[in-house]
Amino acid sequence: MLEQNKDYPFLDRINFPEDLRQISEKDLVNVCSDLRNFIIDELASNPGHFASSLGVVELTVALHYVFNTPYDHLIWDVGHQAYGHKILTGRRERFHTNRKLGGICGFPSPSESEYDAFAVGHASTSISAGLGMAVASAMKRESRNVVAIIGDGSMTGGLAFEGLNNASINPNNLLIILNDNNMAIDHNVGALSDYLVHITTSHTYNKLRYDLYRFLRRKKIINEGGKGLILRFNNSLKALLTKQQNIFEGFNIRYFGPVNGHDVEYLVKVLRDIKHMQGPRLLHIRTKKGKGFEPAEKSATEWHAPGIFDRETGIRIVSDESKKPPLFQDVFGNTLLELALQNEKIVGITPAMPTGSSMNIMMKALPDRFFDVGIAEEHAVTFSAGLAKEGILPFCNIYSSFMQRAFDQVIHDVALQNLHVVLCLDRAGLVGEDGPTHHGAFDMAAFRCVPNLTIASPLNEHDLRNLMFTAQQPDAGPFLIRYPRGRGVLVEWKNEMQQLPVGKGRKIKNGKDLAIISIGPIGNLVQEAIEIVESEYVVEIAHYDMLFLKPLDKELLHEIGSRFSRIITIENGSVIGGMGAAVLEFMADNGYTPVVKRLGLPDRFVEHGSIPDLYRICGIDVDGIVETVKKIMK
Amino acid sequence: MLEQNKDYPFLDRINFPEDLRQISEKDLVNVCSDLRNFIIDELASNPGHFASSLGVVELTVALHYVFNTPYDHLIWDVGHQAYGHKILTGRRERFHTNRKLGGICGFPSPSESEYDAFAVGHASTSISAGLGMAVASAMKRESRNVVAIIGDGSMTGGLAFEGLNNASINPNNLLIILNDNNMAIDHNVGALSDYLVHITTSHTYNKLRYDLYRFLRRKKIINEGGKGLILRFNNSLKALLTKQQNIFEGFNIRYFGPVNGHDVEYLVKVLRDIKHMQGPRLLHIRTKKGKGFEPAEKSATEWHAPGIFDRETGIRIVSDESKKPPLFQDVFGNTLLELALQNEKIVGITPAMPTGSSMNIMMKALPDRFFDVGIAEEHAVTFSAGLAKEGILPFCNIYSSFMQRAFDQVIHDVALQNLHVVLCLDRAGLVGEDGPTHHGAFDMAAFRCVPNLTIASPLNEHDLRNLMFTAQQPDAGPFLIRYPRGRGVLVEWKNEMQQLPVGKGRKIKNGKDLAIISIGPIGNLVQEAIEIVESEYVVEIAHYDMLFLKPLDKELLHEIGSRFSRIITIENGSVIGGMGAAVLEFMADNGYTPVVKRLGLPDRFVEHGSIPDLYRICGIDVDGIVETVKKIMK
Repeated sequence: MLEQNKDYPFLDRINFPEDLRQISEKDLVNVCSDLRNFIIDELASNPGHFASSLGVVELTVALHYVFNTPYDHLIWDVGHQAYGHKILTGRRERFHTNRKLGGICGFPSPSESEYDAFAVGHASTSISAGLGMAVASAMKRESRNVVAIIGDGSMTGGLAFEGLNNASINPNNLLIILNDNNMAIDHNVGALSDYLVHITTSHTYNKLRYDLYRFLRRKKIINEGGKGLILRFNNSLKALLTKQQNIFEGFNIRYFGPVNGHDVEYLVKVLRDIKHMQGPRLLHIRTKKGKGFEPAEKSATEWHAPGIFDRETGIRIVSDESKKPPLFQDVFGNTLLELALQNEKIVGITPAMPTGSSMNIMMKALPDRFFDVGIAEEHAVTFSAGLAKEGILPFCNIYSSFMQRAFDQVIHDVALQNLHVVLCLDRAGLVGEDGPTHHGAFDMAAFRCVPNLTIASPLNEHDLRNLMFTAQQPDAGPFLIRYPRGRGVLVEWKNEMQQLPVGKGRKIKNGKDLAIISIGPIGNLVQEAIEIVESEYVVEIAHYDMLFLKPLDKELLHEIGSRFSRIITIENGSVIGGMGAAVLEFMADNGYTPVVKRLGLPDRFVEHGSIPDLYRICGIDVDGIVETVKKIMK
Repeated sequence: MLEQNKDYPFLDRINFPEDLRQISEKDLVNVCSDLRNFIIDELASNPGHFASSLGVVELTVALHYVFNTPYDHLIWDVGHQAYGHKILTGRRERFHTNRKLGGICGFPSPSESEYDAFAVGHASTSISAGLGMAVASAMKRESRNVVAIIGDGSMTGGLAFEGLNNASINPNNLLIILNDNNMAIDHNVGALSDYLVHITTSHTYNKLRYDLYRFLRRKKIINEGGKGLILRFNNSLKALLTKQQNIFEGFNIRYFGPVNGHDVEYLVKVLRDIKHMQGPRLLHIRTKKGKGFEPAEKSATEWHAPGIFDRETGIRIVSDESKKPPLFQDVFGNTLLELALQNEKIVGITPAMPTGSSMNIMMKALPDRFFDVGIAEEHAVTFSAGLAKEGILPFCNIYSSFMQRAFDQVIHDVALQNLHVVLCLDRAGLVGEDGPTHHGAFDMAAFRCVPNLTIASPLNEHDLRNLMFTAQQPDAGPFLIRYPRGRGVLVEWKNEMQQLPVGKGRKIKNGKDLAIISIGPIGNLVQEAIEIVESEYVVEIAHYDMLFLKPLDKELLHEIGSRFSRIITIENGSVIGGMGAAVLEFMADNGYTPVVKRLGLPDRFVEHGSIPDLYRICGIDVDGIVETVKKIMK
């Protein structure tokens, strides 16, 4: 159905943007075609973020054509749309290593290339970071251009608004490009989204204003030298023509648009014109996620990160996984609906991740009890707190690394009032190919000190269901459940749920020579490791699963402290301050002095790669556990 | 100069809002006068937040008069303006206990009164929390009104914008009152602030629209029953009259205002009219901080929390403190300027706290190198990261408890890229009268797990200066310095600064029976405690000051681990996961098994009260340390 093209005559001439700038304007459309085909061809066999990068092919080419990168800085908000940027900036040959261990990173990373002006991964940072760079440039009296490219989805994050509100208060030349595709990863929500659709109605004015501006400048009636002139130009024009104030101009940011983001020649023209303007500006472009690959255009959410697919037929290649254990997220999504059908107080809250959290299951079945608040983690938590204060029971699902955004809201709005909000941290621990910005490394260490919180992590799917069942019991208080990316261990995952005693762990296996204490699904690796060691050596190793990080199971820990002089702790989270530290604190508080070896994520940002590779690197895979056991038993 | 009035004939009739509602409308102005005088009289001798509460006297009276509190909910953003609210809701008699240990809390607190609908203290939460309550009310088919009262300063916080963006997406009756006094604690900044001033120009339209609305409703031409009608009314009216789109209406929130917030009768009229409207609405009122007390009207920042003052003369009573050690914040502020004058790369960043952080010293001397970004902690950190990426050296000063807001930005935007940003956490540890929302309890526990961060805390003023000097050395990387509220210990605080070796602590005192390890100024109490114990008993106690929480001084800890079997750790921060846990981790990692007793803040939210009282309650005052020493030496 789609033409295959493995030759890229125009792209082959471009190793760096300086090569691109040698190409004639009329051939840019061919560069775009090649770049798009290259991305489709590569991604078909080497999975990654797909639809976003296709949507900004023309913008990427136009930006590197017009701006003097890397001296001029491009900051890609979130950054999963930057594949085209990477391919044009010296990384085409290495692009097949994208997201692989030791290969290039799936997000812009300054340590990888000077063209990656700022590390990104989380949403809504580009305006603030870009403003810092633009102000720095002004302070150093450099004429550097700084361009922040932000999607309408990211624009709903509070940080983006804080950036907008500050964009005009200091002299700077920040250019914000609002890449409007009416999508976060899922469909975008909120009033801003409506507003951006509505803005089309003022297209005539904006187009007229822009054309008039060009005309006046050509005639040398205005120039960019005198700031007063520009302001006067803008104001008088506004008075002349507009019936509407633009929301961005409410922030003292000059607005241009909306323009077609897939017309590369026009983009080049517009960018050239606004490049040399003084002061903060915003160019609003309209693009389509998945542009140029029909299946992705039709279903951008499905094609956000589609896995491998058939280049010719456009069909995603999904292996039969019906006999595998389910994804934890699907256990969460299905169980949430199951609970919500029984408990009418339950509602679901997600900040723009209905698909990623599998909360879309509830969204479809009970749309009135489901709230996608857009990319707005802080709001998601405080909104949940407001609901809980009035007797509604929110299950608020936020990826662990994004929950860092709502740290204060959990403390100040939920825990302080002891409100019954169930905080579900998906993607807790190593996430694999998305790398350091997305690993959920810090949640246990950071949240353990927060009073009133219950913190738990399931060993398997049954536990997850039981914990969710337990968390919805009356007066459970603030209840945090963390679980990892990926699959569980039980094909028959759907148990009959039962209430668990809060703060009670369990002994999984008896032993007398050594105790291993784990929390979360990593306990399954401990079981494997123990079998290996016990088959090789005469040793009896006990295994305890904490299940609850907080409150700690004191009875269980007294048993361990009084019986064992050697303990290994293991967790899929920061080894500093995490569950192992909690065990040390308990032992110290109660006068036990065992030798304790803690395993977990090291005190550095862990790179990207497959989850098994990263477990191995961090020494928390089966082999790593076996080695540690042998060492401590010596 | 100001008339003293210790009789409150109207206020005396009001114990609860139901009493207020018995008073005739024309007498409300007298109630306001009494309430204002009561606040002034009380605050003259019992210090607290002053100017904010005076500014909302009329609003407070009008809200409780029109709305059926506590069934209807008022959410006061930040909450330091809620004194009038407290006085009208059963707490007049207890108001003299405000902010005192065991007395009423300086902020709204649901555990104190059912009239306090939601716990507040940090800025910008009211819209999200109120939206949660309003949506809950709609789900439960209740006709409860929810009112969020938010200042223009709080409106710049990202969370407020996330709330605004979501306010219209679900059925709800949230009323937002924008209390516009063009102030945060200091003068407000940012584009939104300009915008709110500018909005006056559309007063005619808004007034006209409101009057027309009232007219049409009186004539029964429109009613609130049919939602379609209202929308049509709004849209057609807009088309008819406006030349400007309102920024809030860009968020699908109906806007009314600006109205004079000191005309209580008019406020009552307006609130009655918009009370029964459907859907989210925003009423913009203009008020003056400090209204009715001339000195405060003239200098609202100084009178934000003025301490005691002479009721008659309006003069603040400031004792001669020239012979006391300085406030840590003043040492910071003066030293920052001193360093900035020597190092032209240094800039200062504060989110709306130039006075509180004493960064106003730099603001006055080097205005071009100082950035007050408004209440926007996330932006403050990411903006700093952008500056640092381009070789500028930001000192970003944020109170410890507010830095919880920027936890992700420190991880994702600063530490991940190992950027040279100096994060200065003022108000770290117990802050006293401001209570649980403001104690800086969690920073050490939460940030200790973040890779690349250096974390330090000074014992005294010289250390603070040395740490700041050290933090600005090239390639120092992300460098966090925490110091407490209040005074240091050295009258002669201005040493010649010297560079400290990063990650090196020091032995303050020799000993052989017990080691006490401290971090931060609490080490001064340790010195006192040791003197007391050693004067009473035959014991030699060593004292070590870590100075750096990260990286840990391994040499020092090896010395301690190898020489001592008994250790006490003490810190002005969460005892879970903090410095004591770091010591336990080190000892475990290196095979030492001492008995360790950790002192610090307990695993509960600590109440408000004087700092000495709270230290005592937490067992970290001199007596507490002495007791702990005696116990561990038994």
